Amino acid sequence: VAEPLITFLSDYGLEDEFVGVCHAVMAGICPQARVIDLAHGVRRYDIRQGAVLLAGALPYLPVAVHLAVVDPGVGGPRRAVAVRLDDGRLLVGPDNGLLAPAAQVGGGAVEAVEISASPWRLEPVSATFHGRDLFAPVAAALARGEPLSETGTPLDPAALTGLELPRPRISDGVLVAHVRYIDRFGNLQLNAAEDLLPEATGGGLEIETVGGERHPATRAVAFADVPSGELLVYDDAQQRLSVAVSQGDAAQRLGLALDDELRIRARPS
Amino acid sequence: VAEPLITFLSDYGLEDEFVGVCHAVMAGICPQARVIDLAHGVRRYDIRQGAVLLAGALPYLPVAVHLAVVDPGVGGPRRAVAVRLDDGRLLVGPDNGLLAPAAQVGGGAVEAVEISASPWRLEPVSATFHGRDLFAPVAAALARGEPLSETGTPLDPAALTGLELPRPRISDGVLVAHVRYIDRFGNLQLNAAEDLLPEATGGGLEIETVGGERHPATRAVAFADVPSGELLVYDDAQQRLSVAVSQGDAAQRLGLALDDELRIRARPS
Amino acid sequence: VAEPLITFLSDYGLEDEFVGVCHAVMAGICPQARVIDLAHGVRRYDIRQGAVLLAGALPYLPVAVHLAVVDPGVGGPRRAVAVRLDDGRLLVGPDNGLLAPAAQVGGGAVEAVEISASPWRLEPVSATFHGRDLFAPVAAALARGEPLSETGTPLDPAALTGLELPRPRISDGVLVAHVRYIDRFGNLQLNAAEDLLPEATGGGLEIETVGGERHPATRAVAFADVPSGELLVYDDAQQRLSVAVSQGDAAQRLGLALDDELRIRARPS
Repeated sequence: VAEPLITFLSDYGLEDEFVGVCHAVMAGICPQARVIDLAHGVRRYDIRQGAVLLAGALPYLPVAVHLAVVDPGVGGPRRAVAVRLDDGRLLVGPDNGLLAPAAQVGGGAVEAVEISASPWRLEPVSATFHGRDLFAPVAAALARGEPLSETGTPLDPAALTGLELPRPRISDGVLVAHVRYIDRFGNLQLNAAEDLLPEATGGGLEIETVGGERHPATRAVAFADVPSGELLVYDDAQQRLSVAVSQGDAAQRLGLALDDELRIRARPS
Repeated sequence: VAEPLITFLSDYGLEDEFVGVCHAVMAGICPQARVIDLAHGVRRYDIRQGAVLLAGALPYLPVAVHLAVVDPGVGGPRRAVAVRLDDGRLLVGPDNGLLAPAAQVGGGAVEAVEISASPWRLEPVSATFHGRDLFAPVAAALARGEPLSETGTPLDPAALTGLELPRPRISDGVLVAHVRYIDRFGNLQLNAAEDLLPEATGGGLEIETVGGERHPATRAVAFADVPSGELLVYDDAQQRLSVAVSQGDAAQRLGLALDDELRIRARPS
Repeated sequence: VAEPLITFLSDYGLEDEFVGVCHAVMAGICPQARVIDLAHGVRRYDIRQGAVLLAGALPYLPVAVHLAVVDPGVGGPRRAVAVRLDDGRLLVGPDNGLLAPAAQVGGGAVEAVEISASPWRLEPVSATFHGRDLFAPVAAALARGEPLSETGTPLDPAALTGLELPRPRISDGVLVAHVRYIDRFGNLQLNAAEDLLPEATGGGLEIETVGGERHPATRAVAFADVPSGELLVYDDAQQRLSVAVSQGDAAQRLGLALDDELRIRARPS
C-alpha cells in the first residue's frame, strides 16, 4: 500500500519556524506520511491568492489530504474545517473562502466537519497558530486513516464559505478578462479559457489595460514562438488563457495586479 | 521503532546549494532519517536570530537531533560541538551562542563533545562550509544511533558559550520590554510573559517606542479581536507577550527592530 | 538496498506551486525515491547560474538522478534530454547548456536520449511546463530503475549543447579572473583555482575591478582570519578561489556581477 500523502500550502513563508513546526507535528502523528510543500510564499493574509493557487494545482496532485492555511481571522469566529470532496480528496483549513475554489474543482464538498474542538487538536490550542495546533494535527490524523467524522463535529457541506471571483465576459467581440494569478515569472493567468478568445487573423491580438494603454500581442503556443521581449497570449499549463513576455515579465510590462481588468481584441490588420 | 528525526536550521538561504548538499550528506550517512527544515532564512551571520528561533520552536518539536548552523566564525577558533540536553535532545552546531538559549529550554547541557576532529567529518574539512563537512555528518551519525561520546572529544558542558539577551523590567508600573523576535507577519515577540503586563481596565494599553511616540493598543487574545489595522498585545503561540497589527505589520508600523526597547503601560481612561 | 535519490534544481522559486507539483508527480511514479531540493532560487531564465550551481554541487552529491530545469525555451525547438555520465550519474533537463558543465564534472556524457516523446511523459504535454509533464516523470522513471534507453530516443552524446564560460588568464604576473558564482553571502567564486594566484609576501593582495578601483585583500584560509569587514581571497569549499568580506558582502562591496572581470596581483610592500 502506498504511503499517505499530504500537500501543504500556507502564507507562513520559510523565514520563520512555522512550516517546520507543522511538519514536526505531522511527523509525530503520522510518521509514514509524505508531506509535499505546495507553496508557502502566498502573500501574507492573501486568502484569494492561496485559494486560486490551490485550486489551480489540484488537478495535478494525486487524491490526498490537502492542508491549506491562510488565516487572517485565526482565533476569531471563522470556522476551522475538514472537508471531503466528491473526488475523494480531503481539504483541511480555515473556512474563510480559501478552500472554496478547490472544493469546486474536486466536484464539491460531500462531507464536512468543524474541527475547532477536534480530539486531534494540540492542547492548549493557541489563539494565533492553528496551523500547528489544529490544522496540521487533523491533516495528519486523516492521513493515517482516521475517519473524517471522528475528527470534528458534523457541518452542512453547503454551509461552507464561498469565494467571489470576477467573471470574464464578451463585449462587442472583445474579451474582458481579469488577472487570476501572477506567477514568479510575471506570467498573468486570466480567468478565461481559450474558447472566449476572439479569432485573430494571423494571431494578431491587442491587449488594452485599464488605463487605456494598448499593447500588441501574438496568439502563440509557447514562449519561444515569439521573439524575446514580446507579448504573447497562450494556453497555460492549467489550460487557462495567460499573457506572458517571452523571457520577460508581463506583470511588470503591463503594470497589472491581481483582479485587474484587461481587454483582448483582434488586432486590426 | 520510529524513524529518527533531524531538524535543520541555518542562515544558508535556499538560493544556493548549501541546504541541499547538507541534506544529501545526511541521506548518505543515515538514509532512514527524516530531516525537517526548521528555517533557512535566518539573516546572514545573525547568531542571535537563529538562537531565538531555535529556542522558541524547541518545545513544539519532538526530542530529536537539532542541527543549527549560523556560523560567521567558521574556520576560526570557535568550537564545533554536539551537546546532549537534560531532556534528551541533541544539539549540533557552532559553539558561538547559537545553541545556548535552546540548551536552556531543554534543561541545560548534560554532556558535550568538541567535533572538529570527529571521526564522522568529511575530509578534507573545508575552512568555510562546516555545515557540509562537520555538522551535517555528525547530526546524521547521532540520528543513526552513534553514541555522542564517539562523535568527538569530551568537553565540559559548563564551558559552552552563552548568549546575552536583554531583560525586561518593571519601572513605575510600566513594562519595559524588548523585541525578541520579528516574524514574517511583522509580529513583535517581546522578552516578557503575561505576568509582567500592567493591569489595564477594559484592556486599554499604550505602547511607547524609543523615540517617545505613543500608540494605543488593546490587550486581546486573537488578531480578530480588534479591528483590522489596529494594534493589539497578546500572548503568542509560544506563550510570550507579543505586539501585532490585525492583518497588518507591527514592526513596520512601530518602526522597531530586534532588541529595541518599548514601554507598555495602562492607557489613562 | 538504499532508496533511490533524485536531486532537483530549478528557477521555479517557491512562491508558486511548480516545485510542489513536480514533487507530487515524482511521488506518483516512484514513491520510494527521496527527492532533495538542491535549489529553486536560480534567477528566472538564468541557464548559466543554474549550470554553474549544479556543476559545483555535483561532487558533493551521491551518484543519483539529477533533475535540473531552467528552461526559457520550453515548448520551442530545444531538445529535452536524459543523459548518463561516465561516473554513473543521470542528468535530466532541457538541452540548452544547463547540463553541460555538470556533464563535464561527471566525466562526460556516455549515453543520451531525447525525451520529448518519452513513454513516461504526462499527456497532454503542455507547451510551458515541461518540468511537470516531461522532466519530473522521466527523472522518477529513472529513479525507479527504468533503463535510460527506454525513456526516450537515442541521441549522440557528443551532440549535446555546450555552455561557453569565460576563462581566466595570467597577464604580466596578474591573475585576470571572472566572477563564476555569487552566493547568498555575497561571496564571489572565481573561475580560477589556487595555482593561478600570484605569490604574495605576507599574503598581501590587491584586487582591481573593471572600473580601475583597487582594493587591498588578504590571502587567507577562513573568514575569521581577517578582521570583520575586510576583504580576503581564499579557497572555497569547492576548491575554487573566492573573494569574501569577513562577515560582509563582497559582491556589494566590489560592485561586481556574474562574469565581471577582476585582476588580482601581489600588493607592493
